[in-house]
Amino acid sequence: MRDAFHDSLDHVSDQLEEMTRMVGTAIARATDALLGADLSAAESVIASDDDIDALRRDVDDQAVDLLARQQPVATDLRMVVTAMHMASDIERMGDLARHIAKVARMRYPQSAVPDAVRDTVLQMSEVARELVAMTGQAISQKDVHAAVQIAKEDDRMDELHRQMFAALVDEHWTHGTEAAVDVTLLSRYFERFGDHAVAVANRIVYLVTGYYGTEDEGLLTR
Amino acid sequence: MRDAFHDSLDHVSDQLEEMTRMVGTAIARATDALLGADLSAAESVIASDDDIDALRRDVDDQAVDLLARQQPVATDLRMVVTAMHMASDIERMGDLARHIAKVARMRYPQSAVPDAVRDTVLQMSEVARELVAMTGQAISQKDVHAAVQIAKEDDRMDELHRQMFAALVDEHWTHGTEAAVDVTLLSRYFERFGDHAVAVANRIVYLVTGYYGTEDEGLLTR
Repeated sequence: MRDAFHDSLDHVSDQLEEMTRMVGTAIARATDALLGADLSAAESVIASDDDIDALRRDVDDQAVDLLARQQPVATDLRMVVTAMHMASDIERMGDLARHIAKVARMRYPQSAVPDAVRDTVLQMSEVARELVAMTGQAISQKDVHAAVQIAKEDDRMDELHRQMFAALVDEHWTHGTEAAVDVTLLSRYFERFGDHAVAVANRIVYLVTGYYGTEDEGLLTR
Repeated sequence: MRDAFHDSLDHVSDQLEEMTRMVGTAIARATDALLGADLSAAESVIASDDDIDALRRDVDDQAVDLLARQQPVATDLRMVVTAMHMASDIERMGDLARHIAKVARMRYPQSAVPDAVRDTVLQMSEVARELVAMTGQAISQKDVHAAVQIAKEDDRMDELHRQMFAALVDEHWTHGTEAAVDVTLLSRYFERFGDHAVAVANRIVYLVTGYYGTEDEGLLTR
């Protein structure tokens, strides 16, 4: 009975990792779409978000099924509940990649990103990809140390977000209001992407230590 | 045994309603802070968000406790899991009210909102308050019809969000880039506030009908 339970839980964990891989692909492609004004990349991100959503529903269904059939308690119960919360955060990261792709699609054949902030967007995308890869690893290893590294990496994202806002309100911003609106939203999407990685990290800390983190103000964030 | 379970579940439902009331107060005060450049209102929203977060943790703890001690199945299990998801969405609505208050605080003693879009912000706030009140009612009554009304009300929010973006990219926007960045974020916060109300509504539909809605693309949204 217990072995069947842990096999099922391993399967859920594998699916969460698979979700992070799909999100990693989505954020990389969304960046290509954005910086390369690549319409087909944008469309593929938007279309494939349905697969991430479907996998999330699958994780939820399996979790509910595990609760109903195995009636876990203590740490086992906590792991099932945590898996549902993680699935929610990772799905949301996928939504944010889709939002970025939609901005790219809206401005096609132009790029939504003025040259002046192109490098900052590229760095945000690199941090985002790093964060989602670290999230996958932290899930598979249930590693508090890895979770702490995620919070540190997210500090880089927050710094890039601040840089972007400084560039926007600088008197030398000559790209007009429409580009300012686009860049504001894009920067916000990347920043939120990082927040959700930290939320998953906080869940791992909770799983291992029994202490809570919340989405915005977890143990690890500040 | 079953009665103790349903008493506990009623208590959780009451706490979710209480969360919606707190969020309703937060979004009303955040709007006052924003449009009246009222620093103490902004501070009170930011401080009281901790109470909403604490209540959410309390709901989560009770839900996990209910799962462990009562080991519900079928509809009872679904209700407990749904309560956790709803708590997450309502807490996030509180976070968004806090974000709005932070924009107000950042621009104090100025108002972050130019006169030209003041009325749109006011309407967004009214819709937000209506949405969170409807959410509280839908939770207490587990009413699919009320849930459908939430999705309709959120259409008004989306329309206001579109109006706001049209105003931002209009050539007559003369309020500068900083105000454009602020208004972009504020409009996005209100829009997301509505999305989370719809997410709760979708959860109620799931509870009653067994069909899923997801955060962004639920049964009710379009």
